Amino acid sequence: MTQPGSGTRPDDARRHNRAVLLRRLHVEGPCTRATLAGELGLNRSTIKAVVDGLAEAGVVTEAVPAQRSGAGRPSLLVLPDPQAAVVLAVDIRVEQVALAMVGIGGQILGRHSWNLHRTTRLPGEVITHLAESAALLRDELGVAEQAVGVSVPGVVRRSDGFVHEAPNLGWRDVELGARLAAVLARPVQVANDAEAGALAEHLRGIGRDVADMVYLSADVGVGGGVVSGGQPLRGTGGYVGELGHLMVRPDGRECFCGSHGCWETEVGEPALCRALGLPEDTPRGVLVAELRDLAVVQGRADRLLEGYAGWMTAGLVTVVNMLAPELVVLGDLFGALPPSVVERIGSELRRRSLVSRAAGGTRLAVSPLGRDGALVGAAEIAFEPVLAAV
Amino acid sequence: MTQPGSGTRPDDARRHNRAVLLRRLHVEGPCTRATLAGELGLNRSTIKAVVDGLAEAGVVTEAVPAQRSGAGRPSLLVLPDPQAAVVLAVDIRVEQVALAMVGIGGQILGRHSWNLHRTTRLPGEVITHLAESAALLRDELGVAEQAVGVSVPGVVRRSDGFVHEAPNLGWRDVELGARLAAVLARPVQVANDAEAGALAEHLRGIGRDVADMVYLSADVGVGGGVVSGGQPLRGTGGYVGELGHLMVRPDGRECFCGSHGCWETEVGEPALCRALGLPEDTPRGVLVAELRDLAVVQGRADRLLEGYAGWMTAGLVTVVNMLAPELVVLGDLFGALPPSVVERIGSELRRRSLVSRAAGGTRLAVSPLGRDGALVGAAEIAFEPVLAAV
Ligand SMILES: [Zn+2]
Ligand SMILES: [Zn+2]
Repeated sequence: MTQPGSGTRPDDARRHNRAVLLRRLHVEGPCTRATLAGELGLNRSTIKAVVDGLAEAGVVTEAVPAQRSGAGRPSLLVLPDPQAAVVLAVDIRVEQVALAMVGIGGQILGRHSWNLHRTTRLPGEVITHLAESAALLRDELGVAEQAVGVSVPGVVRRSDGFVHEAPNLGWRDVELGARLAAVLARPVQVANDAEAGALAEHLRGIGRDVADMVYLSADVGVGGGVVSGGQPLRGTGGYVGELGHLMVRPDGRECFCGSHGCWETEVGEPALCRALGLPEDTPRGVLVAELRDLAVVQGRADRLLEGYAGWMTAGLVTVVNMLAPELVVLGDLFGALPPSVVERIGSELRRRSLVSRAAGGTRLAVSPLGRDGALVGAAEIAFEPVLAAV
Repeated sequence: MTQPGSGTRPDDARRHNRAVLLRRLHVEGPCTRATLAGELGLNRSTIKAVVDGLAEAGVVTEAVPAQRSGAGRPSLLVLPDPQAAVVLAVDIRVEQVALAMVGIGGQILGRHSWNLHRTTRLPGEVITHLAESAALLRDELGVAEQAVGVSVPGVVRRSDGFVHEAPNLGWRDVELGARLAAVLARPVQVANDAEAGALAEHLRGIGRDVADMVYLSADVGVGGGVVSGGQPLRGTGGYVGELGHLMVRPDGRECFCGSHGCWETEVGEPALCRALGLPEDTPRGVLVAELRDLAVVQGRADRLLEGYAGWMTAGLVTVVNMLAPELVVLGDLFGALPPSVVERIGSELRRRSLVSRAAGGTRLAVSPLGRDGALVGAAEIAFEPVLAAV
């Protein structure tokens, strides 16, 4: 309510136009000057000034499109140069850390990962290994990142990257943002993995044109990220919701969080293992193979996972009734559920949710980004301030 | 992402400044030109031009403050004239309809209400009675409303005021927005009652300086409204969440919504009656008196309402873990719960919610607006476009 309303100064307007145009190219890909003018509501001379400025700075180039349509001279496409602004994306998971250098436009220029075990999972170990891997990637690719985005499976204070609790990593009260910024000598943004995954689906996945969506994923724990009105939903202090800890079963198991019957305890990786009669610590590869086999025999998956699907539906009804999303995206391990089971959960959800019925039927879909979701999202989180400042 | 970035035209800037200043006066009350300049980030000559323009149009006046502080000439206060823009606020409840004419600044200029019964609760009856009452109020007060805001306990499509389902009124698929607009010949906004209540608490109640809050209320049903980042949270199609239908008890009662074990069935008005050993249809006055008596004997309320408080907490843990609010406001019937019970629910919530612990402890408080919440919120919903256009 206190936004300044006085006339925008020419310099501010130029900078603003430049950031908006670059963001458009970054998210939606190359297009012609005419398309930019139409989409951004700017006149052609303003577009020319901005594109010329960015071309001079080496941030964009213009090129003849490969596929020519119709006769006449083809319009040039404005392309961002991926190397003109590069960020380092980091996805810290329970069993693995992945990192990637990502250029404007979302292109992954190079990546690296390593497995985590109990002894290598300590914050200090992870930070040191990250710094070494980042240096190797820089050398290999001949690029240097301008900023860093990190995805962590835990409760994170967004403002300074303080990790309050990441139970499945065994982390508590880790100043991850500050420590990484000191070691890497770059600005670092740390986000909850489900927030990162949600942003990835919204910008580069199945939720591209969807303003109101929820992304749910299971690794060892269950997390969820929410996009509402096109913006990531955050609460007080920048904390995002912990959808894995909505209560679905009053007489359910104790959860590490101090509550019991949390959704996570009924539909997380160990619960899925139990449903299939496998040990709770079955390796991910074996679990996914089992799910694949299960999908082959008609009806078998539905029978075996009936109870599990019931708890998935119960939590989803609560999520949809509370947030009224148009689309719910299932990521990571949830993406490996047999299609017939996902379909059944979706139809049961639409039947039982008052809000889904009112809003015309919530879609339930599997993430196309798979395990890369959080990594792609971490890159986008790092890009936000970078693109605004180019 | 496609906001126009070209320079703001002088006319637009003037209109924008005027709307921002008027909204500031409407929400925060009278203040000096110097305060306006500081808060809005505008220079004194801009403030002068805007205030002079509004004074000429009869929308604001300037006056000497009643309480003079210090020596010297006191600064004049800029005051909105309540009658310069008036809206009609309507709160449709299960047992009663209330309506009020509200002026800029939130002053209720006059009000009227009538009780509803099964036969007078039909949409056509309510619409006709509303039109008649509005005409009476206009005559009595000598004012005419510029717009109308309506609060309804149901699932509402915000864009056109279509009431999809208002089960406790027995309404289904009612074109309330369009029908009222035709009868009253004014623009009409219809919102869910919990959305209206949340907005009222955020602008004029206990959530004034809180950007992330949840408002929960019980009439016959249970509803909740969410303010996130200072804005009402809405989902696809403008639908708001139905917090009363988050699932807390898998083996719980059937709910009208097609699900079972909904929060509403465990903590709504009939559930509270059951907990107290009263018939489910006990009149509201009797129920509230019973709750008041209960609070007098130390410990008695806690014992009798232990189970009820457990279901309140269960739902609140889910709400706080999902949305990470700083504050949860209990409105309407929930405001009549004995203070010791509310306190216990609050401390149990803070103990069990992971997100509350991370974010430093979610506050749980009783609404100061009481039964007027939805009415006050309906006025604010009507004022939004009016203030932007004055
Ligand atoms: Zn939990
Ligand atoms: Zn229900």
